[in-house]
Amino acid sequence: MTETQPVQAQLTLAIDAMGGDAGPEAVVSGAARAVEAGLGARLVFFGDAALIEPLVKAEASLSGAEIRHADGVVSMTDKPSQVLRRGQNTSMWAAISAVKEASAGAVVSCGNTGGLMALSIKQLGIIDGVDRPAMTALWPTPRGRTVVLDVGANVEATDNQLVQFAIMGEAFFRSLTGEQKPIVGLLNVGAEELKGHEIVRSAARILREADPEMSFAGFIEGNDISKGTVDVVVTDGFTGNVALKTAEGAARLVGSWLKQALTASLITRVGALLLRVQLMRLKERMDPSSVNGAVFLGLNGLIVKSHGGADAAGVKSAIEMAASLASRPFRDEVAETIARVGMRAAETKTQEGAGGDVKAAAI
Amino acid sequence: MTETQPVQAQLTLAIDAMGGDAGPEAVVSGAARAVEAGLGARLVFFGDAALIEPLVKAEASLSGAEIRHADGVVSMTDKPSQVLRRGQNTSMWAAISAVKEASAGAVVSCGNTGGLMALSIKQLGIIDGVDRPAMTALWPTPRGRTVVLDVGANVEATDNQLVQFAIMGEAFFRSLTGEQKPIVGLLNVGAEELKGHEIVRSAARILREADPEMSFAGFIEGNDISKGTVDVVVTDGFTGNVALKTAEGAARLVGSWLKQALTASLITRVGALLLRVQLMRLKERMDPSSVNGAVFLGLNGLIVKSHGGADAAGVKSAIEMAASLASRPFRDEVAETIARVGMRAAETKTQEGAGGDVKAAAI
Repeated sequence: MTETQPVQAQLTLAIDAMGGDAGPEAVVSGAARAVEAGLGARLVFFGDAALIEPLVKAEASLSGAEIRHADGVVSMTDKPSQVLRRGQNTSMWAAISAVKEASAGAVVSCGNTGGLMALSIKQLGIIDGVDRPAMTALWPTPRGRTVVLDVGANVEATDNQLVQFAIMGEAFFRSLTGEQKPIVGLLNVGAEELKGHEIVRSAARILREADPEMSFAGFIEGNDISKGTVDVVVTDGFTGNVALKTAEGAARLVGSWLKQALTASLITRVGALLLRVQLMRLKERMDPSSVNGAVFLGLNGLIVKSHGGADAAGVKSAIEMAASLASRPFRDEVAETIARVGMRAAETKTQEGAGGDVKAAAI
Repeated sequence: MTETQPVQAQLTLAIDAMGGDAGPEAVVSGAARAVEAGLGARLVFFGDAALIEPLVKAEASLSGAEIRHADGVVSMTDKPSQVLRRGQNTSMWAAISAVKEASAGAVVSCGNTGGLMALSIKQLGIIDGVDRPAMTALWPTPRGRTVVLDVGANVEATDNQLVQFAIMGEAFFRSLTGEQKPIVGLLNVGAEELKGHEIVRSAARILREADPEMSFAGFIEGNDISKGTVDVVVTDGFTGNVALKTAEGAARLVGSWLKQALTASLITRVGALLLRVQLMRLKERMDPSSVNGAVFLGLNGLIVKSHGGADAAGVKSAIEMAASLASRPFRDEVAETIARVGMRAAETKTQEGAGGDVKAAAI
């Protein structure tokens, strides 16, 4: 998988420097590291100029960067409804505006997820035919990385929304990796034990009939995610969010057990010393910041959400992902596929007279 | 946590010897190990006597065990509806009958989960006030073990059913560990990002008002499960099943990375040698068979489902759990609490005029 591709010289990224747990320090430092690693994009920082300017000036690699002052900050505790009402003076708003006005190709923000989604929908709008945006996570596997969506933009999803997630996830994976035929799976429970959600079953029927071009592998189970059985795992935002956080928790528990094992005695400490290089590599693999950067799919513009607690390394990953994706036409690809499949899906559903429907949760 | 308690001499366990992936060999061998470890219960094996008898005779510790022949076997691929129609001659049916007739205190089976649940409901019936049985999993944490339910008996759950799961899980944890005030949490998604399911929110309201005796911690997130933030994690069977399998997959991935690290070079192999004892302990901790044994809660009788692929060590764990639980009055405790809380919950819901309702999935 190649995730970093040559980027056109004119690409500009709008960086929301405020709102993350680690403050503008981590954002600016991460941005500097990305530029030093050959990002090839122009950076514009949005936020409190008095705070950001000294940080940017201290980084030689950011001499070409621009700073645009914004008074307000969206805090982690602000509700999306508050952000929508009072967020117009914030760095987050200004960064999204830059994408709306096409003066930037993407936003990277460590801020409040719900607020970022609400402001993005309001300013950029949703692709025609998409009901609700979805949020991606990159999941490490033995084969590379799997994309999981939705991991939290919506708490429920209808069958048609799952179909849209599948189409968006497929286009996203293709843009990220260059893989032309990503394999897509729908997350379900063991078929021999349970019938599975009717919504999931209906989504599978629609996908098979309405998007025959897709490499659709049918249902997968929870353990298939880390196996890398498929490239794109489709699920509703409640299940996806629980799965992601549960896996992080399980990996952390195994990591803490390993640490106990390594430090149990003088002999194990010597053993750990001999394993030092390999253990550091293992730690890097287990580090969530190496796969930092959730993308909001389904919007008329590219928004990359970095984890609120991301350090400089995490911010660097998110910025690199934004630069890599900004040069791909995946928004148009999603729009075209959604339009094509949507028509066929409507036919399929009319023929079958089927189709579970649940209410979409408002953010 | 003490999970093995003195068991009354007269306890009999009905062991379904058929239907597991590893055959009656693993079941009989696991049973012998449990007896050798001081089980203190009489064992009755159900299944093909021609297969079982030589296995039992080969184990000196099983000299007091009984064998009851049954012609039929519930296979892993049988659908619950088929099992219900044609399962009356099977070892599974006969083992459950022994509990129904009170000639055994519990069933242990490695067989088909859906079939076991269907036959158990049919023969034993459900506790008054419980809508649907739930299935537990034991989850390792730094503090010991957490109980997660439902992990797959139902694909959906109403708010009232989640409340019932909470009550059943609390009583189960108390019986298993002796802990008088287990802490109960409802699995949800990050509050700052999402509203969460209305069903989960309604269940939390009901629990707070209708069961003030419960140590209810409110919402927890996926990463809290492996942290051991609470003793009992309550969720619907779809989410619970995905969470359980996703965590197993994530732990296995970390384990495979660790193996790569240990075998990367001659030097790392020497390091691994120095860590041998500790790594074996780590492997045991990560071994699912050490927490084998899912209990079906909500039935008028105790059914312990061993993993279909369990080896002798796994079967031993499941049999020990059955013996430990069979001597506790947790069925009556669940019945009393459900009756008490059910009345208060009805009042709460009438006052609020709230309450999401979804259809329960038939097995």
